[in-house]
Amino acid sequence: MIKTDILIIGAGPTGLFTVFEAGLLKLKCHLIDALPQPGGQLAELYPKKPIYDIPGFPEVLAGDLVDNLMEQIEAFQPGFTLGERAETIEKLDDGSFIVTTNKGTQHHAPIVAIAGGLGSFEPRKPPIPNLVKYEDKGVIYMVKEPEKYRGKKIVIAGGGDSALDWSIFLADIAEEVTLVHRRNEFRGALDSVEKVQTLKNQGKIKLITPAEVVEVYGEEELTSVLIRKKAEVTEDIHLETDYFIPLFGLSPKLGPIADWGLEIEKNAIKVDNTLDYQTNIPGIYAIGDVNTYPGKLKLILCGFHEATLMCQSAYQRIFPDKKYVMKYTTVGGVTGFDGTKKEAPKAVIQAID
Amino acid sequence: MIKTDILIIGAGPTGLFTVFEAGLLKLKCHLIDALPQPGGQLAELYPKKPIYDIPGFPEVLAGDLVDNLMEQIEAFQPGFTLGERAETIEKLDDGSFIVTTNKGTQHHAPIVAIAGGLGSFEPRKPPIPNLVKYEDKGVIYMVKEPEKYRGKKIVIAGGGDSALDWSIFLADIAEEVTLVHRRNEFRGALDSVEKVQTLKNQGKIKLITPAEVVEVYGEEELTSVLIRKKAEVTEDIHLETDYFIPLFGLSPKLGPIADWGLEIEKNAIKVDNTLDYQTNIPGIYAIGDVNTYPGKLKLILCGFHEATLMCQSAYQRIFPDKKYVMKYTTVGGVTGFDGTKKEAPKAVIQAID
Ligand SMILES: Cc1cc2nc3c(=O)[nH]c(=O)nc-3n(C[C@H](O)[C@H](O)[C@H](O)COP(=O)(O)OP(=O)(O)OC[C@H]3O[C@@H](n4cnc5c(N)ncnc54)[C@H](O)[C@@H]3O)c2cc1C
Ligand SMILES: Cc1cc2nc3c(=O)[nH]c(=O)nc-3n(C[C@H](O)[C@H](O)[C@H](O)COP(=O)(O)OP(=O)(O)OC[C@H]3O[C@@H](n4cnc5c(N)ncnc54)[C@H](O)[C@@H]3O)c2cc1C
Repeated sequence: MIKTDILIIGAGPTGLFTVFEAGLLKLKCHLIDALPQPGGQLAELYPKKPIYDIPGFPEVLAGDLVDNLMEQIEAFQPGFTLGERAETIEKLDDGSFIVTTNKGTQHHAPIVAIAGGLGSFEPRKPPIPNLVKYEDKGVIYMVKEPEKYRGKKIVIAGGGDSALDWSIFLADIAEEVTLVHRRNEFRGALDSVEKVQTLKNQGKIKLITPAEVVEVYGEEELTSVLIRKKAEVTEDIHLETDYFIPLFGLSPKLGPIADWGLEIEKNAIKVDNTLDYQTNIPGIYAIGDVNTYPGKLKLILCGFHEATLMCQSAYQRIFPDKKYVMKYTTVGGVTGFDGTKKEAPKAVIQAID
Repeated sequence: MIKTDILIIGAGPTGLFTVFEAGLLKLKCHLIDALPQPGGQLAELYPKKPIYDIPGFPEVLAGDLVDNLMEQIEAFQPGFTLGERAETIEKLDDGSFIVTTNKGTQHHAPIVAIAGGLGSFEPRKPPIPNLVKYEDKGVIYMVKEPEKYRGKKIVIAGGGDSALDWSIFLADIAEEVTLVHRRNEFRGALDSVEKVQTLKNQGKIKLITPAEVVEVYGEEELTSVLIRKKAEVTEDIHLETDYFIPLFGLSPKLGPIADWGLEIEKNAIKVDNTLDYQTNIPGIYAIGDVNTYPGKLKLILCGFHEATLMCQSAYQRIFPDKKYVMKYTTVGGVTGFDGTKKEAPKAVIQAID
């Protein structure tokens, strides 16, 4: 059982910054995310695109913003349960919560902060018969540990950035990479498209287009796929493979959280006020894209503010008798749980003679 | 008469970022500030100190954050009335406002956003008889146009960063710089103290300590000061000078805004809700440190959020019949009033053969 002060569901920008604000209050955080990496929409949907409305950044790549946030919270040593979806919640008699993931990992905390964005990112699955039967037995929707593909045969399907980027990455590691796409045209960053072209010319990526994977075979584990190529004549190619990785994008689904007894409106969690973003269940907060209130804007900078106010309220809930006096970081510095201390240089007092 | 869409009182971080969010909505802004430079508390009180809690910046110098914000809003061409204090407000029959400064400059806008922080920065004046008589006639509390001191004789009083830094800066420009401080010890950044020591050794700054300016003389304009040096024996030094610049710090005073008919609580403006930060007078908003509501935190990142929601509400007030559909900057780009356009690179669609 993982224990923490604030259990954060969702490691998007809002969840990540919560760790910082909680850390200033000496509260520890643990984050759960269905994605294999932190960053939420920024990491999954547009890591290489610039954002222009983060205050103080005339321009910042989404992926860089996530890296910066990870650096900013490092000293507060957050825990992560990645690649798992928070599935159920249970309220104990003492008012604390146990949250269990789809893989059975349990988390216990007095405060739950739902920073789930548009929902947990779930893969779009192609309509291939028996596909689910081989899930995690050769069929993979999200690449988590690239090392496990070393020396293996891999079939990737898809025509966007993920399919291009993982083909490039795995071409180096795997024994054989076959990229299947139902069109001849790919849609992605210019350099990714060009790189795949080069690797194909070098024979490092086998390209089959326009084509689709239509069947999958194997006893327990996946052993081969059937690829249907639709050129002038239709051609069926039977290919032995260790892994089939369909990359048709991930789409967010509010999912299990919708059944936690929280008030839901417009596919988001209604908060009872905009002073601390608490939900109808005391001790559970909703911050960032996942919440709704009149005038709500689904913007990154709003999530930062909501996280900050929420942490103050969480502190009062955990320590009802303590009075917290806020200190500016410039004045009080930042002391990490790892013992690090950042502090503004003090003014010197010195005679001039 | 200066005309604009949103008249912002206070050019601190909150006021500056308002220009950006208003700009995305195609609304123009003009800012008034009592200080000669933008940046509010960050520029006036701690420009060289690091801030640690700006989301996405593990560390940023206050002065650099201001520079970044100025760069971020540049394309929206804000107007500035600097070095003047907003003094009076008048509501016209059409619901718009005229705001007049202490120097008589008039501004007309349908929306007023008060981002006045802790108040307008006013100099702390030393208790010297007749000092006010020479204000702007040789007695100066804030250095605005350094060029006017070229070839002049200057007496600076004070022992902190401002006194040190302006002495250093003006030593290059003025004919003679005399620095007077009531102690031998100065309090400031290490390099500033050392620089003054060097300039003193080179004879470029005349230092009189421990001493105080006790009298000022002149017909219409200031012509000389009396400095009392309190060593073993007390010594009176009569010094001819063109300018006397007492730099004992600026302290913020809510000032005239307190008399504008707004609800005031704890020296701040009460906002009726946290959904758009409007005050009890429709069309006047209060954002950033200057407002108060239950759970208010006087933090820079909160001002950014408040400014953003406020601009949406202002837009609805100006265009009650238009429905604004928010577009992410990453998706819609940023089009400046100067014709510039920033845009994320589009994905290419390209065949691989
Ligand atoms: C193309 C695009 C461009 C954008 N441009 C901008 C812009 O320019 N400026 C701006 O401010 N905003 C922009 N946005 C919006 C911005 O990305 C969101 O406001 C931001 O990501 C919200 O952050 P968050 O942390 O609240 O949620 P998210 O980033 O959505 O993160 C939520 C995380 O929670 C996880 N999660 C949810 N439920 C569960 C569960 N049950 N179990 C485990 N994990 C779960 C999800 O997997 C996800 O990783 C853009 C969005 C898109 C799609
Ligand atoms: C030493 C110190 C350290 C700090 N450290 C941090 C930190 O680490 N993190 C953090 O988030 N915050 C910190 N703060 C607080 C932060 O500086 C404020 O939250 C922030 O400046 C508020 O911004 P603002 O734009 O609302 O107001 P301000 O920065 O106060 O700007 C308001 C401006 O309005 C002007 N003004 C007011 N009334 C009038 C008028 N009638 N006419 C003309 N002009 C007027 C003033 O002159 C001023 O320039 C710190 C503050 C101090 C003093």
